[in-house]
Amino acid sequence: MFDPVEKLKEFISHPSVSADSKFRDGMQAAQEFVATLLGSLGFTVEVVKTDLHPIIFAQRGGDASWPHVVIYGHYDVQPADPLNLWKTPAFEPTIIGNRIYGRGAADNKGPLMTNIAAVAQLLEANPNLPLRITFLIEGEEEMGSPSFPKFLESHKDRLKEADFVYLSDTALPTPDQVVLTCGLRGLALFDVHVTGAKGDLHSGLHGGVLRNPIQALAEIIATLHTPDGRVNVPGFYADVLDVHPWERDELKKLGADEKSYREFLGIDTFYTTPGFSPFEALRFQPTLEFNGIGGGYQGEGTKTVIPSKAFAKISCRLVPNQEPEKIKQLVMDTIRARTPSGVKIEFVDQHQGDPYVVVPPDRSNTPKEQSPVLARAFRAADKAVSEVWGRAPLYLREGGSVPIIAQIKQVTGLDSVMFGLFLPEDNLHAPNESFNLEVMKKGIETSRRVLAALAEKS
Amino acid sequence: MFDPVEKLKEFISHPSVSADSKFRDGMQAAQEFVATLLGSLGFTVEVVKTDLHPIIFAQRGGDASWPHVVIYGHYDVQPADPLNLWKTPAFEPTIIGNRIYGRGAADNKGPLMTNIAAVAQLLEANPNLPLRITFLIEGEEEMGSPSFPKFLESHKDRLKEADFVYLSDTALPTPDQVVLTCGLRGLALFDVHVTGAKGDLHSGLHGGVLRNPIQALAEIIATLHTPDGRVNVPGFYADVLDVHPWERDELKKLGADEKSYREFLGIDTFYTTPGFSPFEALRFQPTLEFNGIGGGYQGEGTKTVIPSKAFAKISCRLVPNQEPEKIKQLVMDTIRARTPSGVKIEFVDQHQGDPYVVVPPDRSNTPKEQSPVLARAFRAADKAVSEVWGRAPLYLREGGSVPIIAQIKQVTGLDSVMFGLFLPEDNLHAPNESFNLEVMKKGIETSRRVLAALAEKS
Repeated sequence: MFDPVEKLKEFISHPSVSADSKFRDGMQAAQEFVATLLGSLGFTVEVVKTDLHPIIFAQRGGDASWPHVVIYGHYDVQPADPLNLWKTPAFEPTIIGNRIYGRGAADNKGPLMTNIAAVAQLLEANPNLPLRITFLIEGEEEMGSPSFPKFLESHKDRLKEADFVYLSDTALPTPDQVVLTCGLRGLALFDVHVTGAKGDLHSGLHGGVLRNPIQALAEIIATLHTPDGRVNVPGFYADVLDVHPWERDELKKLGADEKSYREFLGIDTFYTTPGFSPFEALRFQPTLEFNGIGGGYQGEGTKTVIPSKAFAKISCRLVPNQEPEKIKQLVMDTIRARTPSGVKIEFVDQHQGDPYVVVPPDRSNTPKEQSPVLARAFRAADKAVSEVWGRAPLYLREGGSVPIIAQIKQVTGLDSVMFGLFLPEDNLHAPNESFNLEVMKKGIETSRRVLAALAEKS
Repeated sequence: MFDPVEKLKEFISHPSVSADSKFRDGMQAAQEFVATLLGSLGFTVEVVKTDLHPIIFAQRGGDASWPHVVIYGHYDVQPADPLNLWKTPAFEPTIIGNRIYGRGAADNKGPLMTNIAAVAQLLEANPNLPLRITFLIEGEEEMGSPSFPKFLESHKDRLKEADFVYLSDTALPTPDQVVLTCGLRGLALFDVHVTGAKGDLHSGLHGGVLRNPIQALAEIIATLHTPDGRVNVPGFYADVLDVHPWERDELKKLGADEKSYREFLGIDTFYTTPGFSPFEALRFQPTLEFNGIGGGYQGEGTKTVIPSKAFAKISCRLVPNQEPEKIKQLVMDTIRARTPSGVKIEFVDQHQGDPYVVVPPDRSNTPKEQSPVLARAFRAADKAVSEVWGRAPLYLREGGSVPIIAQIKQVTGLDSVMFGLFLPEDNLHAPNESFNLEVMKKGIETSRRVLAALAEKS
């Protein structure tokens, strides 16, 4: 008997931080864990080597007339620092009440295990289920999936045989209200490094004669937003798609409350693009954020130094139809033009990803050429969610990014049905990440019904 | 026979970083090394307990008619990070050519050992030397000497018996040109912490609705200087003393070259208070510098987080007659007034120190009440420097800070003769700190002659 919670505990205990080479062993262990698990369910498992972390490509074949679903997930997780803010060890999964704590619990190990468990239950009940299933589980999602494009090229013919992609790597706004995500923001990330003097200097012996690189970096950063909350980079908003009326209506049904959201964040006041509520802004508007900054002495006490260097890590979230490469160039050009005298700047390019949008069936702007199996999947999901959760799902774009969804669409033509399972309070990418085990239970039942419905109708 | 270089190597090998509690053992070892050394020279050594690092108070008494010099120094050093930029290990003293490398080599272990060696040679040649000497060697200089005021209060009666303070903890502009430092900048240091949301947030799920604390901190920092290089804090320059004409003339004799200095720093262009050359600015003008900044993710790759917190370490160098407490309040009030909405700020106070000025004898503005022994010491130093170095010393204020010099003056009335020994290329407070052993040799001979001359005339 497949115990999803025990399996999830084991999965979380493998510290699979893809972006940090110190976690090589944890990555290997998490990958082997998933491959072995899918093998035990009867899948033909290929571990596809890449330049960095392998991709697990596990197939359950069948008759060409059967529907074919690709279930996507990732076995890698975000870095866990600052470790001192964790109440339980990041890689020792701990159940408290109905939550399991640990890095990756919600992003993406819990939701991925939910869908694996649904498949396990289905196949246990009916080993001859007329449904083709391909698991596609990568290990570089948290670092921008650098190996994924090459993988897509080499596997596109096998993927094109499928009908759609199913995944749970998006959000659930409340434990009672499922969202089938219809859009994702894109990403454009890079670092900027500022250099002043050729070495660190004593601020007494040399202070007062040169521009400090921390000051120069701050002067640059301070120009990148307007006081009223717009990104202050010429051309930044040029390609932003207008929002379709049904999207605004759907968002209203969410009934989100600004005061509660402010309290959840712990802030006094929002800071959004003018004309957008915070809930609209994070779905329909692009951002330019500073993910990290560093320079000079950061330890205990003081060190009266003028540092030689300072840096910031910048990321933009993009919306359709912004292009990451174009936005990066706009922002870099703007930074270059605004760099004050006396310092030099350099950029370190990081990853990027296109934004994505899919229109569910029966909406006023549904494309005519939509795949019939995709439409059936959306309708099956609507029905299963309504039955299991007692309330129909909402169809919303969300603020997060899963850049490979746009890549899959571009290379294979496959659209995605995104069944969100992580809650705002799950602390993704932050200390004390957790996953709600009640949500997991309902999620397993929902995915089981969606997949069963697809199989029944084939 | 006293071997100054061997003694200095041993001294540097004790990692005495006062600001970092991880170096407790190194502090203890350095303190014991100095105390034992002075005991072996016949001094009565007291190790005066303080709340943190002890002060070594070592006396050679004698007839009340003998002149009495207090020789000041410190056995603590700056933190050595970033360690990866050191070419030789920071606490394994290494001689390459005529330089000894290691943290503290120049600040202050080499110059202090120079003066100890001069005393050792004098007493070896004449055990009955008619000169009272008190060594006053502290262990908290690099963290702002927090225990020194209490020590001064408890020892002020014994210190008031002395005539002046002699020290080598200031700069030598070139290996051929000694400066007797006549002024020091003061210091005012504090950290500012900015908090946005109550925890780190996923920049996809929440990006676009709140002000990032890195952005807020940058916006604050960017307001603190004008584009033309003044500190942009109302009232900051109100108490700055005008420069006396002989000071500007003396500085001209230094013959410093802007192009060489720019090349030494590795910058294209200076950034000074308008109306001041860089050499004037760093002696006669106050500064506001950023010694460190931090927030969010600083590791490899990327982490798409909106951090909860960011901070900066700020230090002001002050000139007579600026008051550290008043300047701190001005800067903090300005920062408070300029903090954008959506974030909270907090200050962490660090140390501070008053600026200091002493006028050597025979200058147009020499105070009438100057101590006769102080005047004799200045004249003896002028003669010894002229003989040993082949060129008369210059009398200049410098940009660095030794805050206890102003405290000693305030509490005991004693002025200081500051015989500078570290060179610009010695990399104080930076990786690859070193001390020139030729300078050390000449320094020992100079200090020996100064002290001998004082004894002769008593």
